Amino acid sequence: AIYPITPSSTMAELADQWMSEGLPNIWGNVPVVQEMQSEGGAAGAVHGALQSGALTTTFTSSQGLMLMLPNMFKIAGELTSTVFNIASRSLATSALSIFGDHSDVMAVRTTGFALFCSGSVQEAHDFALLAQAATLEARIPFGHFFDGFRTSHELNTLTLLDDAEIRSMIDDRLVHAHRGRALNPEHPFIRGTAQNPDTFFQAREAVNPYYEKVPAILEGAMDRFAAMTGRRYGLFDYDGDAEADRVLVIMGSGAEVARAAAAALSEAGEKVGVIQVRLYRPFSVSHLLAVLPASVRGIAVLDKTKEPGATGEPLFLDVVAALAGAVGRGERAVMPVVIGGRYGLSSKDFTPAMAKAALDELKQDKPKSSFTLGIVDDLGHTSLAVDDGFMIEKDSVTRAVFYGLGADGTVGANKNSVKIIAEDAGLYAQGYFVYDSHKSGAQTISHLRFGPDPIEAPYLISQAGFVACHQFDVLMRQDPLKVAASGATFLLNAPYPKGEVWDRLPVSVQRTIIDKKLRLFVIDASAVAREAGLGGRTNTVLQTCFFAISGVLPHDKAIGYIKAAIRKSYARKGQVVVDKNFAAVDASLAKLFEITVPAEVTSRVVKPPLVPSDATEFIRSVTARLFAGEGEKIPVSMIPADGTFPSGTSAFEKRNVSEIVPIWREDLCIQCGQCSFVCPHSVIRARYDHEDKLIDAPEGFKSAAVTTRGYPEARFTLQFYIEDCTGCGLCVEACPAVSPREAEIKAINMADKLPILAAERESIRFFETLPVNDRACVNGSDVQGVQFLEPLFEFSGACAGCGETPY
Amino acid sequence: AIYPITPSSTMAELADQWMSEGLPNIWGNVPVVQEMQSEGGAAGAVHGALQSGALTTTFTSSQGLMLMLPNMFKIAGELTSTVFNIASRSLATSALSIFGDHSDVMAVRTTGFALFCSGSVQEAHDFALLAQAATLEARIPFGHFFDGFRTSHELNTLTLLDDAEIRSMIDDRLVHAHRGRALNPEHPFIRGTAQNPDTFFQAREAVNPYYEKVPAILEGAMDRFAAMTGRRYGLFDYDGDAEADRVLVIMGSGAEVARAAAAALSEAGEKVGVIQVRLYRPFSVSHLLAVLPASVRGIAVLDKTKEPGATGEPLFLDVVAALAGAVGRGERAVMPVVIGGRYGLSSKDFTPAMAKAALDELKQDKPKSSFTLGIVDDLGHTSLAVDDGFMIEKDSVTRAVFYGLGADGTVGANKNSVKIIAEDAGLYAQGYFVYDSHKSGAQTISHLRFGPDPIEAPYLISQAGFVACHQFDVLMRQDPLKVAASGATFLLNAPYPKGEVWDRLPVSVQRTIIDKKLRLFVIDASAVAREAGLGGRTNTVLQTCFFAISGVLPHDKAIGYIKAAIRKSYARKGQVVVDKNFAAVDASLAKLFEITVPAEVTSRVVKPPLVPSDATEFIRSVTARLFAGEGEKIPVSMIPADGTFPSGTSAFEKRNVSEIVPIWREDLCIQCGQCSFVCPHSVIRARYDHEDKLIDAPEGFKSAAVTTRGYPEARFTLQFYIEDCTGCGLCVEACPAVSPREAEIKAINMADKLPILAAERESIRFFETLPVNDRACVNGSDVQGVQFLEPLFEFSGACAGCGETPY
Repeated sequence: AIYPITPSSTMAELADQWMSEGLPNIWGNVPVVQEMQSEGGAAGAVHGALQSGALTTTFTSSQGLMLMLPNMFKIAGELTSTVFNIASRSLATSALSIFGDHSDVMAVRTTGFALFCSGSVQEAHDFALLAQAATLEARIPFGHFFDGFRTSHELNTLTLLDDAEIRSMIDDRLVHAHRGRALNPEHPFIRGTAQNPDTFFQAREAVNPYYEKVPAILEGAMDRFAAMTGRRYGLFDYDGDAEADRVLVIMGSGAEVARAAAAALSEAGEKVGVIQVRLYRPFSVSHLLAVLPASVRGIAVLDKTKEPGATGEPLFLDVVAALAGAVGRGERAVMPVVIGGRYGLSSKDFTPAMAKAALDELKQDKPKSSFTLGIVDDLGHTSLAVDDGFMIEKDSVTRAVFYGLGADGTVGANKNSVKIIAEDAGLYAQGYFVYDSHKSGAQTISHLRFGPDPIEAPYLISQAGFVACHQFDVLMRQDPLKVAASGATFLLNAPYPKGEVWDRLPVSVQRTIIDKKLRLFVIDASAVAREAGLGGRTNTVLQTCFFAISGVLPHDKAIGYIKAAIRKSYARKGQVVVDKNFAAVDASLAKLFEITVPAEVTSRVVKPPLVPSDATEFIRSVTARLFAGEGEKIPVSMIPADGTFPSGTSAFEKRNVSEIVPIWREDLCIQCGQCSFVCPHSVIRARYDHEDKLIDAPEGFKSAAVTTRGYPEARFTLQFYIEDCTGCGLCVEACPAVSPREAEIKAINMADKLPILAAERESIRFFETLPVNDRACVNGSDVQGVQFLEPLFEFSGACAGCGETPY
Repeated sequence: AIYPITPSSTMAELADQWMSEGLPNIWGNVPVVQEMQSEGGAAGAVHGALQSGALTTTFTSSQGLMLMLPNMFKIAGELTSTVFNIASRSLATSALSIFGDHSDVMAVRTTGFALFCSGSVQEAHDFALLAQAATLEARIPFGHFFDGFRTSHELNTLTLLDDAEIRSMIDDRLVHAHRGRALNPEHPFIRGTAQNPDTFFQAREAVNPYYEKVPAILEGAMDRFAAMTGRRYGLFDYDGDAEADRVLVIMGSGAEVARAAAAALSEAGEKVGVIQVRLYRPFSVSHLLAVLPASVRGIAVLDKTKEPGATGEPLFLDVVAALAGAVGRGERAVMPVVIGGRYGLSSKDFTPAMAKAALDELKQDKPKSSFTLGIVDDLGHTSLAVDDGFMIEKDSVTRAVFYGLGADGTVGANKNSVKIIAEDAGLYAQGYFVYDSHKSGAQTISHLRFGPDPIEAPYLISQAGFVACHQFDVLMRQDPLKVAASGATFLLNAPYPKGEVWDRLPVSVQRTIIDKKLRLFVIDASAVAREAGLGGRTNTVLQTCFFAISGVLPHDKAIGYIKAAIRKSYARKGQVVVDKNFAAVDASLAKLFEITVPAEVTSRVVKPPLVPSDATEFIRSVTARLFAGEGEKIPVSMIPADGTFPSGTSAFEKRNVSEIVPIWREDLCIQCGQCSFVCPHSVIRARYDHEDKLIDAPEGFKSAAVTTRGYPEARFTLQFYIEDCTGCGLCVEACPAVSPREAEIKAINMADKLPILAAERESIRFFETLPVNDRACVNGSDVQGVQFLEPLFEFSGACAGCGETPY
């Protein structure tokens, strides 16, 4: 029973798809997948299905998990075998976030569910099965969780379990026992009574033996699994020096990072180690103590969650209690110093340097507790200093970063490349894709690693040997080259002739290219795609260029793989489409040029400021840095504590992402305003003005006589904020005066857009100076397609943004 | 914004009533009270109202609080001033329970709400105000909670704050600041954005300063409050020996119990103390350390919740972390041994003897942790032995216990008595009423204490100087005299002449009366009430008897108070009603007799077994003990761990509570079956049988020729399980053949009921041996008013219990 919520949706979508395709499970049945009205309903349906004896699961995250809480207490209280697979995600507080941390799982740690954490793509795959095997035996329900996005959306080489292996881990007798506990009219009983103070407490304690057995049961399953697959997992796994004096304790994908950091430090002679917690609930103190070296004097426990007002985060508290208890009982001689820290909230990147910072803190006389990693906390001074120079990536790993836009094909092409490299070329591969929550039209940054060994590096690439910028305009707003390593290859999609490109680069980009000694390759991918008949689809072109110059695979082999992939993807669309793509591959190679980098900066292009200099202090110091992709560096003191932000900042966020934008044909326009109403991005704004107001209008300012009778002195204006346009075409569809075909002709492509932009900007500046009444939208919307016409006319219109009449 | 849930409902109901009565708040406004469709809706409405700048609250418990969780994260994340008043209650696990513990509050401790715990009726009153004062200043929302039932439903003498005092604690500037933060179209801003990994973490840390200030802000409010009222509270309050070596840490009403126990132990020379935690979140480690004597070597932390699979319960973990941190930072020389225990789950009584058991455990070399108090855990052996002989109640306190039935007037009369004694007589008084969740018709036990000093004893009375049994039949099923102290007064309502009563008592009751040297008073309260024209309302009669013989007040004074109360209660119903009650008071005194207790047991009445000896082992060893009111003593091993109970046990729970029951007039009956259909307790069961089957029927077995044509050999039977009857009268209302008036004449009263019972039982026994088909109700209902007639007739009827056709 499912209800989609990011980042768990893919799991449910795949299950739904498999059902519709009739894919059978290991017993040859096609499971029923039922989408409910909410996660509350999904949890209720799961509870009900379990009580009918069906093996049942759900997939969820964040608020979805919270809505399941009441049912989870019941499911656990009734000792019901089930696995919830959770892509863990932040809970909405001062802001909503779709990104990953453990705050959702920690909010359900009171339910009595076992909580079992996988830390990689392979583990997520394996642990889903281990959890199912264990819950059937233990009768304690399992929450199997892993880091939302970082694990749920990472591509990595993994070994898939086949059905026979899955089958062998599931004991049919336990399934029958589960079914035997179902509510059944053939042998009626009652489950879920109302109890009074006389017995409720005893009932709560009667479950203890079941919890006590979980660790051993899961270990048993892990043993059988290891014998079968060779992949061995422990409830708590220690890696590091057997005589370590300092240890990190961590859960989830951060453990791989910490392990890599500790290994590097160990090589440098430091006595450190890492404990990865896999079974978080029930928390087996004895298993933790068994793996913790007796030599340890300092422990840093890292939690990927925050509980304001608590004495410490959850895992920290558990570790402290475990150790204090052991010392109290005389089982351990010395109480280590235990400090706790927070990291990775909402997918904040967690790097080896941060792991090192936590280990380093333990060297202090009075180490800080409740510290933070990965931010600058200039307010509460919780943050530890992190040495960004601590780099431990192996030279054998190819690292490539791609800047694209949502829905421009970059991510899809990169997923395809990962597949080619891992499946066809037999290398290990990793792909991770950083989207922002603007969705379509927003930026995507793809981080790809390839190499001869397994890639265990669940953090972003900061030193890439290959950087691609699939949208030229990104160079005007951001700094894609900050991730370029010295000597790296830089592939730039530029809508200019080969000879012009260098001079079109802003000064700062030229400077970086020269300083970092980058090799610069350019292609006009849009032109190649258009010429090959692929329209705006540049993914094949840019993927070909990547393989051609990155050196990750031999050239000819790579082109062969790409063509094979094209054949596979497009065969059912016909040979014509396949041929077009083949042509694009060949043309790409022909139109890909290396630019000889001059020794000196020659550009006169300066990056325009992201926001006007007269914007408010907050816009300039916070909002503009978010636009620039430098939000990571904004210190705590500058972020509003209660989530209160100035409104209307979308006016400053000029993404300029569309390759086609509308232009106004004032000769055809009937002034209905529908284009303005339907535009989802407020690109098109209409207003009436008295002609006297337009006396000072600049030359390019367009207006038309008003078609309404009785206002001969009024002029109508449609303004196009084309930098906000996403090219969706709804305005054209809505227009009763222009046929879509005709409108298409009038649309302009990117190459023609830039000069237009300047004139438009001047025109809009004037437009915005025209006096409007000061009534704001009741609901705070800044989508005001039709400005309120008062006081010019007695017209009390509704806000186009929210539909309300004005306040 | 409210949605009713036990035990918080009364708060919301009163607020609703006050609104409808137009009662103004301290600003002269009548607050809006809005009931929503669920607690999820209530939380959403609160969130919305707060964002509009209104001071807003809600009242909730248990699952209700869980449904508020997503909004609570938002409210706290947005630093919004509000107070949720929470009557804390168990969360449903293997069973639902409406009773009190902290599991609901602990399930929301991750939200970022401040959690502020009051431990008595006075504190609940005071802290609601302190919380409101503090939240306005701190901007952190407060969850003000107290023990469901034990505090929410206890009557106790308290000092009410007047409006001027409330007014003086609320700073209007802070209210204006709260309103100033409201969403407002006049100065628009946005609150509640979607954030990305770049800034979400910083935003979470930006709230830290607000949390850090909460302890000082609340302390400041407490100081102002103390100056005004003389009632001084601390964030953590220590009571006990300044050189204590052992200390209990506890929250809520249990603190009063623990303090009383520690005081008694201190007097006996033990070096012990108690810390009451009032501000649980944010947890101020420095305040805790400041009150904890340096001499302490052992700490037992008592939690009123359970988190299966955790390393310990929440408060325990906090105390361990606080101390380990202090030792680690060198702020404290020695790490005490800290053990944790659970008590009071679902209103399980917590007594001074249990507090002593926890302190005693700290004397052990290896004290047990994760222990339990108040149950016998023969499964996990978590329970500590409790010395029930440890009694610390003062002789100056009058203790009285009353056994009644829900809706029989006992609780109402006792609340009235508490009021008389506290308000009119100026003594301190406490009333606590133990209901079971059967509601109407179920047992009530009233625990009343009175005395010259404040009553701080939030636990049940185990040694009462006065015991009243308002229902004779209770003696047949339970042992009301187990709470009678030696030499106590026993008031028995018996439907027998004075001279007969002694012989009607079961052997075991006579034995107890003699052994405990009880004084026995009897009255036929029903007869007195009937004769005074009060129908079945015996409350005035029994209340009069209590005052007449308990000695809590001088006789004449008490009668005066009762009459004054009658005048107040019934004046608006007219002088006739007042006079009837006055007559009942006088008649009560005339018809109240003391029975001279013989030296030896003379009875031949033996309590009948509560369940038949051929019932299943579970029914005999568990269910029967629940019926007997001895569920407290059932050990853990005997309670189903997963909440699975045998169904149909209501067949064994013969409460025999109604004073009127129906009898069948087979001469008038048209065999429509409606009486059987409408009976909510399955008292009336109908069936057809072939006459041959009835050959062996006992003499009293009634049947009638079937009115349906074509079955001359069939007989119709209506059977009345009169021990299950609650006297609701629905059968009479539903009967088309008998007018209600006629039926009333046929109803029998209690005095006539007992002999009928015997004959009915024999008749029913035969009835139940008649063969029925073995089809069970689809939904497991055992309410089968009309037995399925197959194979006698081709009739496929629906189950009268659930309406489904059979499986």
